[in-house]
Amino acid sequence: MRFTSEQRLDDGVLERAFTLGEIPGILWTPGSASASAPVPLILLGHPGGLHKMYPRLVARARHSAAEGFATATIELPGSGDRPRSAAAEQARADLHRALEAGEPVDDEIVDRLVLPLVEKAVPEWQAALDALLALPGIGGPVGYSGGVIAIGVRLAVVEPRIVAAGLFAGSFVPRALFEEARQVTIPLYVLLQWDDEGNDRQAALDLFDAFGSKEKTLNANMGGHTGVPQSAGDAAARFFTRHLS
Amino acid sequence: MRFTSEQRLDDGVLERAFTLGEIPGILWTPGSASASAPVPLILLGHPGGLHKMYPRLVARARHSAAEGFATATIELPGSGDRPRSAAAEQARADLHRALEAGEPVDDEIVDRLVLPLVEKAVPEWQAALDALLALPGIGGPVGYSGGVIAIGVRLAVVEPRIVAAGLFAGSFVPRALFEEARQVTIPLYVLLQWDDEGNDRQAALDLFDAFGSKEKTLNANMGGHTGVPQSAGDAAARFFTRHLS
Repeated sequence: MRFTSEQRLDDGVLERAFTLGEIPGILWTPGSASASAPVPLILLGHPGGLHKMYPRLVARARHSAAEGFATATIELPGSGDRPRSAAAEQARADLHRALEAGEPVDDEIVDRLVLPLVEKAVPEWQAALDALLALPGIGGPVGYSGGVIAIGVRLAVVEPRIVAAGLFAGSFVPRALFEEARQVTIPLYVLLQWDDEGNDRQAALDLFDAFGSKEKTLNANMGGHTGVPQSAGDAAARFFTRHLS
Repeated sequence: MRFTSEQRLDDGVLERAFTLGEIPGILWTPGSASASAPVPLILLGHPGGLHKMYPRLVARARHSAAEGFATATIELPGSGDRPRSAAAEQARADLHRALEAGEPVDDEIVDRLVLPLVEKAVPEWQAALDALLALPGIGGPVGYSGGVIAIGVRLAVVEPRIVAAGLFAGSFVPRALFEEARQVTIPLYVLLQWDDEGNDRQAALDLFDAFGSKEKTLNANMGGHTGVPQSAGDAAARFFTRHLS
């Protein structure tokens, strides 16, 4: 892990860009972090494209910093400045064609799009976690927050350092993930946009039902895919405060 | 409305029992209320039986009082010390028989049980509201919180003084209520116990979908019918703070 730039935001949060091998990422730490005990860490998931997602990511990072948490994110395989995969681009084109034609999206397309992404991304998030937890000032426990929900589910199953996950049910879910969901036992907070035009609500509800966790919350709201209300974001933040503090 | 007793709770909350005609009820006001401006009011819904429900009701009342809200509740028709209705008792017996036999509950039984209750209870809650809002120290806006969800839905449609409702999706819903739900436009916060053994989860989800409100939140949790987690109760309380303060 190599830091490539750093800046102090106006609320004192330290933002550091880094690369992990060829993967770009960003780490945010609370202004008070260096002087005090190691802080918990939240991994910020997103749909890919750090530049495009930056405004929303930094808002979540500032909010978490105010609660005393460090946050970090990395670029997804095939997104942003990272090399494209021809197979993933083809799957994405097939998905958009189906959506534009108003056809149901074939499970086979979702599998081609999401499963290779999960296979590649999850070890990268784990490698990032190794590097981040080796830094002074970053301790645990660790949470995962956001989408892609399939990445969050796999991480919740395979990565014991993650003790709580706040998932955004806003992306397509391969059928194989439902079996993995049964193996998840950590506390979960799932945000669902009830009127998300590009999402399969029933699949999201089925996935929530499948999770094996004894403590799981579904918080569903109106406002479309990107219209998560402030109160729901605040509620998800309080979930992490309960489980990571 | 006639006050029959009063006591000051240890946190300063004033608890007053009253009767409205033959209907018993309880009013809780914050310790600071008499000295200051009129406070908002939350009507506390419940499944019937004020004595049995008292511990949970007073806990909700204290929580609301800490936020600066008065709360009030009245006994339901046919519950507690109020006269039984033979037809309602028969419907209740039929319902329990179906549940114990593991049979699906007939819509006809739910209609016989719930519709007359709604018809009778809703004007009583409105009469209570008239009397409560005439008291010094009780102002508006007014919220409705809790079950029976069918009573909350009807009140949300017919009672313009109620500006926000936090509903508990824990009871049977007559099919006719789904049409009424489409007419609800006030902000809603719906608590659902995902693993509620005595409830029809799909009906609760369908009802949530039917509500016409642009602002509606579904907060679903584990823990069975009576196991609403503290965090969900707190979230519902914050909903009222946002809409009544």
